Amino acid sequence: MENKLKQLKEILAECVDLMYAGALLEWDQQCYMPTGGSEARSYQMATLKRLAHQRLTSSETGQLLEDLKPYAEQLDPDSDDACLLKVAQRRYDKNVKVPSELVMEFARAAGASHVVWTKAKAENKFSDFQPYLEKIIALRRQYADCFAPYTHVYDPLLDDFEAGLKTADVQAIFADLRAQQVSLLQEIAARPQVDASFLFLNFDEQKQWDFGVEAITKIGYNWECGRQDKAVHPFTSNFSSGDVRITTRLTPDYLGTALFGTLHECGHALYELGVNPAYDRSLLGGGASLAIHESQSRLWENLVGRSFPFWQYFYPRLQEYFPAQFSNVSLETFYKGINQVSPSLIRVEADEATYNLHIMLRLELEIALMEGSLEVKDLPEAWNARMKDYLGVAPSTDSEGVLQDIHWSNGYIGYFSTYALGNLISAQLWERIQTDIPDLADQIRRGEFAPLLGWLREKIHHHGSKYEPQDLVQQVTGSKINAAPYMRYLRAKYSEIYGL
Amino acid sequence: MENKLKQLKEILAECVDLMYAGALLEWDQQCYMPTGGSEARSYQMATLKRLAHQRLTSSETGQLLEDLKPYAEQLDPDSDDACLLKVAQRRYDKNVKVPSELVMEFARAAGASHVVWTKAKAENKFSDFQPYLEKIIALRRQYADCFAPYTHVYDPLLDDFEAGLKTADVQAIFADLRAQQVSLLQEIAARPQVDASFLFLNFDEQKQWDFGVEAITKIGYNWECGRQDKAVHPFTSNFSSGDVRITTRLTPDYLGTALFGTLHECGHALYELGVNPAYDRSLLGGGASLAIHESQSRLWENLVGRSFPFWQYFYPRLQEYFPAQFSNVSLETFYKGINQVSPSLIRVEADEATYNLHIMLRLELEIALMEGSLEVKDLPEAWNARMKDYLGVAPSTDSEGVLQDIHWSNGYIGYFSTYALGNLISAQLWERIQTDIPDLADQIRRGEFAPLLGWLREKIHHHGSKYEPQDLVQQVTGSKINAAPYMRYLRAKYSEIYGL
Repeated sequence: MENKLKQLKEILAECVDLMYAGALLEWDQQCYMPTGGSEARSYQMATLKRLAHQRLTSSETGQLLEDLKPYAEQLDPDSDDACLLKVAQRRYDKNVKVPSELVMEFARAAGASHVVWTKAKAENKFSDFQPYLEKIIALRRQYADCFAPYTHVYDPLLDDFEAGLKTADVQAIFADLRAQQVSLLQEIAARPQVDASFLFLNFDEQKQWDFGVEAITKIGYNWECGRQDKAVHPFTSNFSSGDVRITTRLTPDYLGTALFGTLHECGHALYELGVNPAYDRSLLGGGASLAIHESQSRLWENLVGRSFPFWQYFYPRLQEYFPAQFSNVSLETFYKGINQVSPSLIRVEADEATYNLHIMLRLELEIALMEGSLEVKDLPEAWNARMKDYLGVAPSTDSEGVLQDIHWSNGYIGYFSTYALGNLISAQLWERIQTDIPDLADQIRRGEFAPLLGWLREKIHHHGSKYEPQDLVQQVTGSKINAAPYMRYLRAKYSEIYGL
Repeated sequence: MENKLKQLKEILAECVDLMYAGALLEWDQQCYMPTGGSEARSYQMATLKRLAHQRLTSSETGQLLEDLKPYAEQLDPDSDDACLLKVAQRRYDKNVKVPSELVMEFARAAGASHVVWTKAKAENKFSDFQPYLEKIIALRRQYADCFAPYTHVYDPLLDDFEAGLKTADVQAIFADLRAQQVSLLQEIAARPQVDASFLFLNFDEQKQWDFGVEAITKIGYNWECGRQDKAVHPFTSNFSSGDVRITTRLTPDYLGTALFGTLHECGHALYELGVNPAYDRSLLGGGASLAIHESQSRLWENLVGRSFPFWQYFYPRLQEYFPAQFSNVSLETFYKGINQVSPSLIRVEADEATYNLHIMLRLELEIALMEGSLEVKDLPEAWNARMKDYLGVAPSTDSEGVLQDIHWSNGYIGYFSTYALGNLISAQLWERIQTDIPDLADQIRRGEFAPLLGWLREKIHHHGSKYEPQDLVQQVTGSKINAAPYMRYLRAKYSEIYGL
């Protein structure tokens, strides 16, 4: 049995190698690839995806898993091997239902559409992107149909990013959340606006970069196991627990993009860097799910990075980087400014009070596209109408609207809701952390991040993908994913800032 | 039969995808990978290599090739399909003799040793690198033994880089060449030295970069299908005919490194960029061999880039970039300076009169290592002794000696002689070009490179790997690879510069 387990691990290691090689191709595509490389790259990515899929779903893998079932039952259910077998079985069962040809075709379609989207966004031409997105939606429907009968056509997609979660679960959580978010937003809108104009001055890009580097170095990002590059749409990539890279975007006339974007991606990276290195080349490596991942990025970006104690420590340094912009802005004014609530067009730059509404809009549109009640050609109109409805603003161009996010161009349908779920989980964790580290605020005020990072490593990072995301949340916080802690956090914060 | 051919092409396309994905992993390893990524990367590269090897040598591939034999015989032997079948058969026959496990083990050993070599070179510690190189040599012997009986243990390695060429062929060419090179060198040494001190001043790195970019843009490098990055040991990588990247190294106190290095890599890149795009994802894609490749890089670096007409065009621009260094240096003085002959330690910076001697030294050491007449631990001593013998200089550190080149750390044994062969071929081509483009010098003087590039594209680049390298040389120049044109070229050039 030990020998069979070894064989299985070797097969899975090969799949992981292929997946991470593919991840590097994607990283390169977004950071450095010249446009001429696009077509061949889409083939290369598709081949890697297909081979990983073939290997994972081979009859050899299936047989090994079958043979190992009695062995798995004898193991301590919390042991790494037992969890690995569970995760592998789950992945096998799901993937074996999907033909390799479909995996390949989808990967190629996604690869090819990326460059088209980049250009369409730059030139504000949704019509150029439309046929590519239509193809992606059609292929995603075919994919979902591999799992028929399903409760909802969107379930198999969501499950890829958030194992075990159902469309109905998310809809229930969001229904609860939406009313509370809208009501909070109305209360804030009734109060006098805070000033944030000092964030929209001219900021030297190199200095923005340098400050970001200084901040994440202090927090604990390990440059021997990572690097930062520029990307149109920032993201984090990991190729092992020893190579976790972030990207950032610099906007010369708005400080917030790089500042909070860098903290956000660093949060993702700290997660991957903290995974047990013994899980490298195994299905237990990497974060547990996208929502858990987002809980880490949003925690560092918002609960830490937009907190008063954080800026008690870092604001004097920021003032040294940008004396002209900040010498006459008090810490209190700066703190309020970076927490200004103002419904806006771009999700990644949305404040905490409006962010989840951007997500809800996307989830609803994706579900409608998958159900077939919305056609791709009608997407810009539907987008704009819903923006107006939820946020009271509508984009004047598709580049600022339906084309803003990279996800659909990469074929990621089913991904967005994990952002909002991550927000909720971050607050659930935060409440627990406050209990376990009572002097957290004082530590942060002194620039001491090691205890916080240590807590996250022990409770979340170390486990990698060992536990299913909802089990992990339950295990660490004692509750399922729910909106209450996040709404408590928002309400407390904005009550103080806006005097609700 | 058409269907079988299609199936075979699909398998080969997959192999090519895997090879180019692996090439990107290697590019990244040398340009951007943080050190923490090293171990996982070596596994990833090994997995890609092993899968490509498995696919290429599968019984399915073998059967398709067998089935297609009668079909191949009916084809026009010069047709793409006939050539593809020939190349595929050759690759299959060679690779099927090598166990996949050995491919994997070798790839991992090579991957792991790269980082060790980088560090050993930086710290001048050959002893750290020694066990890795011993492992590589041992694995290369195992590899060679897969092809026993062979005439020479080095033959199978050489054949990987230069299909069809034998160790004895190279030794014969080099024996002829060595005497002539040494004699020329002695004649030059007897003449007064020319001044090159103006190349060893301080040169702003950004300006060096910018001038290089300007020069290769003018020559015809297409930035939509490529990019330039910095690397410790410059190289060119291609991932398709639409994505061919170069790297360069900037030395602040010596202009020659970046100047000629950039032209050299651009020469490689122009080759790959000129391959028939229809050969993408096929074994006919990519350059025909390393020697043909080197003929292109050396042609642009030396026969063009160190010629008087080239600098008649570019020197005024260079003076604009570096007025302090060159305003008082005449074109004639500059031209002589960049062609100064001076035996030195570093191969990549060697002048044209001594370069091939560096190569001969490496070839002899590699052969001795493979034969077992030299042990790795004795390599530094053997290196230094031979440097003294051939070039009259010996390194004071291993970093400047046996550790200088990246090749052995990557497992490339059998590679070096192609550099000298490339020099010879470049001169063979150059004589033919002079006949076909009688006013070439005037064109270059006017900064017109399109006719030259067009000639190379038509005669060499376009064909990719369709023809075996020696056949291609014969076809284009009417002769086999030989030293006469190169020695004629060197003698003419140095007679003028040194007044021989």
